[in-house]
Amino acid sequence: MGLIVMKFGGSSVANAERVRNVASIIIDSYKKGNDVVAVVSAQGDTTDDLIEKAAEINPKASKREMDSLLSAGEQMSSALLAMAIEAEGYPVVSLLGWQAGFKTDNVHGSARIKTVQPERLKNEIGKRNIVIVAGFQGLNSFDDITTLGRGGSDTSAVAIAAALHADRCQIYTDVEGVYTADPRKIGNAKKLAEITYDEMLELATLGAQVLNNRSVEMAKKYNVEVEVLSSLKRVPGTIVKEVAKMEKMLIRGVTKDTDVARISVIGVPNTPGIAFKLFAKLAAKNINVDIILQSVGRNDTKDITFTVAKANGELAVSIIKESFDLADESIICDTSVAKISVVGAGMETHPGTASKMFEALYEKDINIQMISTSEIKISVLIDIEQADKAVAAVHKAFFPED
Amino acid sequence: MGLIVMKFGGSSVANAERVRNVASIIIDSYKKGNDVVAVVSAQGDTTDDLIEKAAEINPKASKREMDSLLSAGEQMSSALLAMAIEAEGYPVVSLLGWQAGFKTDNVHGSARIKTVQPERLKNEIGKRNIVIVAGFQGLNSFDDITTLGRGGSDTSAVAIAAALHADRCQIYTDVEGVYTADPRKIGNAKKLAEITYDEMLELATLGAQVLNNRSVEMAKKYNVEVEVLSSLKRVPGTIVKEVAKMEKMLIRGVTKDTDVARISVIGVPNTPGIAFKLFAKLAAKNINVDIILQSVGRNDTKDITFTVAKANGELAVSIIKESFDLADESIICDTSVAKISVVGAGMETHPGTASKMFEALYEKDINIQMISTSEIKISVLIDIEQADKAVAAVHKAFFPED
Repeated sequence: MGLIVMKFGGSSVANAERVRNVASIIIDSYKKGNDVVAVVSAQGDTTDDLIEKAAEINPKASKREMDSLLSAGEQMSSALLAMAIEAEGYPVVSLLGWQAGFKTDNVHGSARIKTVQPERLKNEIGKRNIVIVAGFQGLNSFDDITTLGRGGSDTSAVAIAAALHADRCQIYTDVEGVYTADPRKIGNAKKLAEITYDEMLELATLGAQVLNNRSVEMAKKYNVEVEVLSSLKRVPGTIVKEVAKMEKMLIRGVTKDTDVARISVIGVPNTPGIAFKLFAKLAAKNINVDIILQSVGRNDTKDITFTVAKANGELAVSIIKESFDLADESIICDTSVAKISVVGAGMETHPGTASKMFEALYEKDINIQMISTSEIKISVLIDIEQADKAVAAVHKAFFPED
Repeated sequence: MGLIVMKFGGSSVANAERVRNVASIIIDSYKKGNDVVAVVSAQGDTTDDLIEKAAEINPKASKREMDSLLSAGEQMSSALLAMAIEAEGYPVVSLLGWQAGFKTDNVHGSARIKTVQPERLKNEIGKRNIVIVAGFQGLNSFDDITTLGRGGSDTSAVAIAAALHADRCQIYTDVEGVYTADPRKIGNAKKLAEITYDEMLELATLGAQVLNNRSVEMAKKYNVEVEVLSSLKRVPGTIVKEVAKMEKMLIRGVTKDTDVARISVIGVPNTPGIAFKLFAKLAAKNINVDIILQSVGRNDTKDITFTVAKANGELAVSIIKESFDLADESIICDTSVAKISVVGAGMETHPGTASKMFEALYEKDINIQMISTSEIKISVLIDIEQADKAVAAVHKAFFPED
């Protein structure tokens, strides 16, 4: 018995049958004596349909009006989910973001939650109501509706769990938990029982599409215990918490990220501060740089290679060309690359991890273009064509077939 | 130049093209120097689609959740209309009912507006923003969304016009104004330039589906000048105001109402107070009685005949049977009747109106079952099969072919 916050994504409530399924998950938990707050996303393709409708009328619609439009999606799904629970005879109330107390900053389209004022939530829970909350939305200081951006409903759920000091925040999805690799591609990928916030962050950043990063950061900050689990199969999922059991596993997972562009700048002047200037220019345009490699070039010049998200590739190239007056052939943007990473908090005390990874790639004749390491991960950049083969080889090295 | 409140119904914004048309009507008025607040209904079939979706999940959904669900329809249409105005480069902001200050009572599904707190509206108008308001919705004292029921957006518009002391409230619809009869059926039906609130109320009650009654009552109470006009043809409509020009016309219109059941109770005891008891029983069940006819019957009994809305026919019969212990054959409910009415404030001083109407019916061999008169209307009950013929005949008598 305790206070459980649940979150259900758009595919979990895509049609009437699935809405009823979610209702039964909520009711099962409520019947055990738990207080339940369930955050819900818009049904299936609703958000995309609304975006399309807006584009037909005004492709450059203001973000304020887009927020008012899109937030209707969660408004509808939250009411429908409440109706499904009413149909089973349980007390329930649906709340919109602003009714649930979500106060955000004024950045329409990707607002950040400033606070959740939990009076109404506490009041409804106190009446033993099941509470359904429209995810993804809040209210700014002008009393205008804002949306939290991609994956916002995860963040809504964690924020409520933090504000109410919930016992657990369950994120229901279409996978059963967090795996050591993509289970659709790696046959013996293992579901993790537990994982730390930092490991989860690295996995999310590196392309494991399970939990939105902002929600994990918030969970870490407020020490909210998160469980990732399936809305279709009723089995335990993966728990994300501060200190996770090690389960004899050094490595939590192997991930692939293909949203990478590698940019090489050849022959920049070999003067102090040149790298700083280059990356400052990119930062000014909000371009995040990931792996960086700098080498002394011929004569008085050097080469700088780094990676950015694919969508930022061309912009980065044009900024650098303008700033350093370089010839076209001096800047190369390669988008046919992938980043393969192994993640695990235990690796910092086990120096063999990197060599084990490199050996696995070497044996499959896969060339490593760049390397980046942190305390809990090792990433390598390789040819995108070899990405799946690389994940399989590295996963096999760390998780031999049973 | 002034402050104009406009209202556009669901068919006026049914698709992207129509949304753009409405945007251009608003912009034209704004460009003339007017301040414009436009109230909008949900697009086309949105509300019906949402009701269907809810019924699939829970046919007995609570009205609170229905209100939260349905109000999303106006939320979407108001944002889309704002986007269409943005696309033309004009300053605009959409507001939901609660943002526009609509406070209602707690009757979900058919809430009444208690007040419109106009601070935000005034603030936006002061910035020379065009303001789009989601119609049909408000907020109750629990901070829950309510809807105003059928025709609620008309009422929203009149309430804003009253709160802001607007110069005019324009109700855009798919007809060009208020006619002397249904122009789809009566070839020479005339559009009225002006009409009084009371005449409009009688016409609305009697089946002219132009303006919602509650909105006319509110307009009368706060003396809001209302114009009914077409969103497709840009021509002047009909103005509804306290004192209307008479235009030499005695009669404002001829209407047909087929939502009528005639109930005859034969042989009730001829004792004082019997009619009072009968109608008190019906009133207790919220059944409105319209025309009443009482005749002395045989012996110590009398017959009472009256009309109610069709939907209330069976309920009225069963209430009377229980209350007066009458045999089945003593109560007759006839739904094959229609009420034909002529409406016009001038008629009270022109005694010839009734006889002109009766003569027109007599000439077409149409039998009058019941008659009811008020200061501004004369209604007769006839066989439903003869209704259209009756309207044509009566209209011709008062408005001879040009």
